[in-house]
Amino acid sequence: MQINENFRNLHESYLFSRIGEAVRAYERENPSKRPIRLSLGDVTRPLAPCVIEAMHGAVDDLSRAETFRGYGPDATVYGYDFLLDAVISHYAKRGVTLSRGEIFISDGAKSDLGNLLDLFERDNTVLVPDPVYPAYTDANLMAGRTVAYAAATPENGFLPVPDGSVAADIIYLCSPNNPTGAVFDRARLQAWVDYANERGAVILFDAAYEMFISDDSLPHSIFEIEGARECAVEICSFSKTAGFTGVRCGYTVVPSCLTRRGFELGRMWRRRQTTKFNGVSYVTQRGAAAAFSARGEREIAENIAYYRENARMISEALSACGIGYVGGVHSPYLWMRCPHGMTSWEFFDYLLEHAEVVGTPGSGFGANGEGYFRLTAFSSHEETAVAMQRLTELLRR
Amino acid sequence: MQINENFRNLHESYLFSRIGEAVRAYERENPSKRPIRLSLGDVTRPLAPCVIEAMHGAVDDLSRAETFRGYGPDATVYGYDFLLDAVISHYAKRGVTLSRGEIFISDGAKSDLGNLLDLFERDNTVLVPDPVYPAYTDANLMAGRTVAYAAATPENGFLPVPDGSVAADIIYLCSPNNPTGAVFDRARLQAWVDYANERGAVILFDAAYEMFISDDSLPHSIFEIEGARECAVEICSFSKTAGFTGVRCGYTVVPSCLTRRGFELGRMWRRRQTTKFNGVSYVTQRGAAAAFSARGEREIAENIAYYRENARMISEALSACGIGYVGGVHSPYLWMRCPHGMTSWEFFDYLLEHAEVVGTPGSGFGANGEGYFRLTAFSSHEETAVAMQRLTELLRR
Repeated sequence: MQINENFRNLHESYLFSRIGEAVRAYERENPSKRPIRLSLGDVTRPLAPCVIEAMHGAVDDLSRAETFRGYGPDATVYGYDFLLDAVISHYAKRGVTLSRGEIFISDGAKSDLGNLLDLFERDNTVLVPDPVYPAYTDANLMAGRTVAYAAATPENGFLPVPDGSVAADIIYLCSPNNPTGAVFDRARLQAWVDYANERGAVILFDAAYEMFISDDSLPHSIFEIEGARECAVEICSFSKTAGFTGVRCGYTVVPSCLTRRGFELGRMWRRRQTTKFNGVSYVTQRGAAAAFSARGEREIAENIAYYRENARMISEALSACGIGYVGGVHSPYLWMRCPHGMTSWEFFDYLLEHAEVVGTPGSGFGANGEGYFRLTAFSSHEETAVAMQRLTELLRR
Repeated sequence: MQINENFRNLHESYLFSRIGEAVRAYERENPSKRPIRLSLGDVTRPLAPCVIEAMHGAVDDLSRAETFRGYGPDATVYGYDFLLDAVISHYAKRGVTLSRGEIFISDGAKSDLGNLLDLFERDNTVLVPDPVYPAYTDANLMAGRTVAYAAATPENGFLPVPDGSVAADIIYLCSPNNPTGAVFDRARLQAWVDYANERGAVILFDAAYEMFISDDSLPHSIFEIEGARECAVEICSFSKTAGFTGVRCGYTVVPSCLTRRGFELGRMWRRRQTTKFNGVSYVTQRGAAAAFSARGEREIAENIAYYRENARMISEALSACGIGYVGGVHSPYLWMRCPHGMTSWEFFDYLLEHAEVVGTPGSGFGANGEGYFRLTAFSSHEETAVAMQRLTELLRR
């Protein structure tokens, strides 16, 4: 019996599990305190009314033999046509043409971002931005892969540029970025697509936050960039857009023309998914399709506007304290400098103890995140206001 | 860029995708025909009323900010306590004591059966019964693992016995078995547990069909067997019991005392899941918990009785034709001999063309399945009756 010893290379707990444990420990020691969580990227607004209606309708479908649905339509990509077509329409608005067979419905971006690695050999070099969503690195370390990092720093606007001297095979990009909120413009994204096509690398493009982009000149999808269909897979989610963190739905686009060494990656992914996955709840898929209807998009836009207002409140508080930050414009995340030269975890403890506010230590997102801290706009107006009042009182001292 | 060349060792399509394609091709050529599907292990009865009520209630929870749920409770095994406790109660009825931290809620057994392999190195020998559910073998071939087979034949009652000369590290067992319907009794299961403990192997025990067991002396869970907590992981599903094939929920039990080479497998699985998975829909979890309530179990028993009646009808028809078969008692599957010395796929075509009935070729489940054919009891009474009438007319000729 050979155990996967690569697990030794991981922290005992995933970043957000560690934060959860730290907060619970604090609450046990301070039972009267109610820390406000601006840490996890978890939504708080209820689902849009049209999504609720669609989900109720789907539950009713499952209550009657005539309308009951079991496994999804066979030999597919686990998506019902009604949802695949909704995704196709969503992309069409950005000028991107997709076919049904290129869209794979899943239980969320995190699953696909990890599971896609089954398509590639262990001995590939993976390039991961630093800082970034920690699941990319952890999923690769777990598989024993070499991870190289592309530095996102104030100097490059937190948007790493391709380095011709790095021989990357698999490249993770996330735009709008988690945690920094930085967004690739067309020219910078084109540089990555060109680099990947020159090298024969594959880009795994995490577009989970695309709906937060408020400037129409910025690309929502990597497939708006020329040449991307030949080198990129795009991973999307209803979590942050339609508030599906607890409902679980995402989708991954694998262009039909994306091939490497004689393999069509879409066919491989279909084979992987039909072997190690069994599709997404019919109820969830009905809800997701409703989110992409005209009414759904209006209702979702209201929720996103709500979170944007929180981001504005956080920005205002940080500015008032004279703290440097980025993000919060095309993203629900604000990426702030830790004050007084504190490390990320020092500031985590300081903020929790003195202001009862929970954020995410930047170092959890990579070495370049040390000295930074992530705050999220996903809380309520009321909690965000109280948290910012406490933060302002603490840091203005 | 190194592609995972092991994909070349797989059939182009997963078994049930191939069958679906064959049936669609037949329907295109014969647009007036309506083949009856007794092929896929997919349920047809609507969800139990108490499950429907619970799911509606959960959707309503998501419609209000006060009761909204995002990501599952953090640092957990992706299960809400209400569902973990329902699973604990379910096991307690069989005399098995579990703790919350040992139960991992997932989107289904197929996902876990494949994803659990992330815990083990590539160079382990995997032992898979032949015939068996094809996802076990495919998931391992995909990862480049050596697969050895344990023969299930009429001589051993379709229940393979451990062979001391085979050096297995990871052992898949499925009881009641898919496709043969054979069930391990305590003594035979004890032999596997003893073998695994002697060798330091790990058993992945697929209990997806446990609720079909109608003889109380047979084990529903491997944890009813002495020593199993030291060597076994159990993978369970609500698909076949509560009709959740389209709702997606399962659970995997990793005993806290299960360790190999200094690793606690439960901790590794938690780390894998928190990195490459993000939990199961709150709506689904509410439905699953209701299925394990006293009322839920009564309602589910009615559905299982309905499918049992189908199995009886199929048994009767096969007996009337003088065709040998097993299964259908503790299982929704009947495993029949192909008539006239046909191969499995020959009989598939013959039955589809001449009786418009779709079943599953036994050879799709392994080399020992050649010459056999699987029929499922998951259709309606009406369709099952018509299918058996057609089958009887064809095979009595």
